[in-house]
Amino acid sequence: MPKFPEPIERLMAELGRLPGVGPKTAERYAFTLLKRTPNERDRLAKAIVEAGNTLLTCSTCRNWTVSDPCPICSDPHRNRQTVCVVASEPDLLAIEHTGEYHGLYHILGGTLSAADGVSPNDLTVNDLLARIRKDPPREIILAIDHTVEGETTILYLARLLLPTGIRITRLARGLPIGSEIGYADEITLTDALRGRRETPTPNTAEK
Amino acid sequence: MPKFPEPIERLMAELGRLPGVGPKTAERYAFTLLKRTPNERDRLAKAIVEAGNTLLTCSTCRNWTVSDPCPICSDPHRNRQTVCVVASEPDLLAIEHTGEYHGLYHILGGTLSAADGVSPNDLTVNDLLARIRKDPPREIILAIDHTVEGETTILYLARLLLPTGIRITRLARGLPIGSEIGYADEITLTDALRGRRETPTPNTAEK
Repeated sequence: MPKFPEPIERLMAELGRLPGVGPKTAERYAFTLLKRTPNERDRLAKAIVEAGNTLLTCSTCRNWTVSDPCPICSDPHRNRQTVCVVASEPDLLAIEHTGEYHGLYHILGGTLSAADGVSPNDLTVNDLLARIRKDPPREIILAIDHTVEGETTILYLARLLLPTGIRITRLARGLPIGSEIGYADEITLTDALRGRRETPTPNTAEK
Repeated sequence: MPKFPEPIERLMAELGRLPGVGPKTAERYAFTLLKRTPNERDRLAKAIVEAGNTLLTCSTCRNWTVSDPCPICSDPHRNRQTVCVVASEPDLLAIEHTGEYHGLYHILGGTLSAADGVSPNDLTVNDLLARIRKDPPREIILAIDHTVEGETTILYLARLLLPTGIRITRLARGLPIGSEIGYADEITLTDALRGRRETPTPNTAEK
């Protein structure tokens, strides 16, 4: 089987280990990189190495940070009475982008999954328990995906946190913006029916 | 607008410069890389830098190589009477994978495109002319994409090479394997009709 020269094959193999990158995409990335200047390649290589070397994990919320505690945990203007539990750093950022939430966070590091062998010990569940025992908030929002793994994680955490007496909430389930009832799936529509509210919808966020 | 810590943002920005990588994909790549070991990140970074530093361009065919001339140009078993002109290195490899071609190659480095501002001077056209003047082959195969840019390039080269008296050919156009006539586009079907052959199809490759 003819092949590219070894340095290209090695580059393609390494690029092919990125998520969702097959041989064709790896080839495309490799050839794009080879057509750039050495300086541009160095910048990417340096970003990869340095991101790993300079980032810490916030000892409170487990978010990536360059200083511990992270800017959110150390921000005196954040509401310390609410902790929003999210699966991952991008989920945290998605919630920050709404501008609707001003409390603290806790990054679980994933969701429970029997199929992928993710158990509570693989997540930061114990850190969460230790943290809320030390400094109990008034509310814990479980902002976790509305998927099988997410639901499992929500049920597990809700049961685990019940004895603390802290108010435990989860994100509303229902029709996303732009959705048409005729095209909505049955579960979403069932969720939307069960979660129906008096009109006009009261804004209950962060009361 | 809330952001990830600077090293992550920088890594995402660099990854986002790969072709077809949007912000979401860059984020996914970045977080995958951050979850790996430093050793794994170093391997990717090293592959990126080293590929650029160790690769040469073959002075004959303009293919990437670690030794000049490249293994194909220096292979005594290749048929030196045929030069196959391809746009890019991956195209060369695709033809090598057929096992059907045993001649030499010439890498153009792209196709002519008025829209992208690619003119003959941006391609290795002069190298091709110098090369065939020095060592004229019996046949030049223009194995270039059947696209607007590819067709333009084929027409340009065919006209340019006409005075040399060398036999100039191009790849057959027609129905790809697995295609159904009812679903074929009109141009492909027109090509297939015009290029029709007596049955059984004679194997004319590399006669």
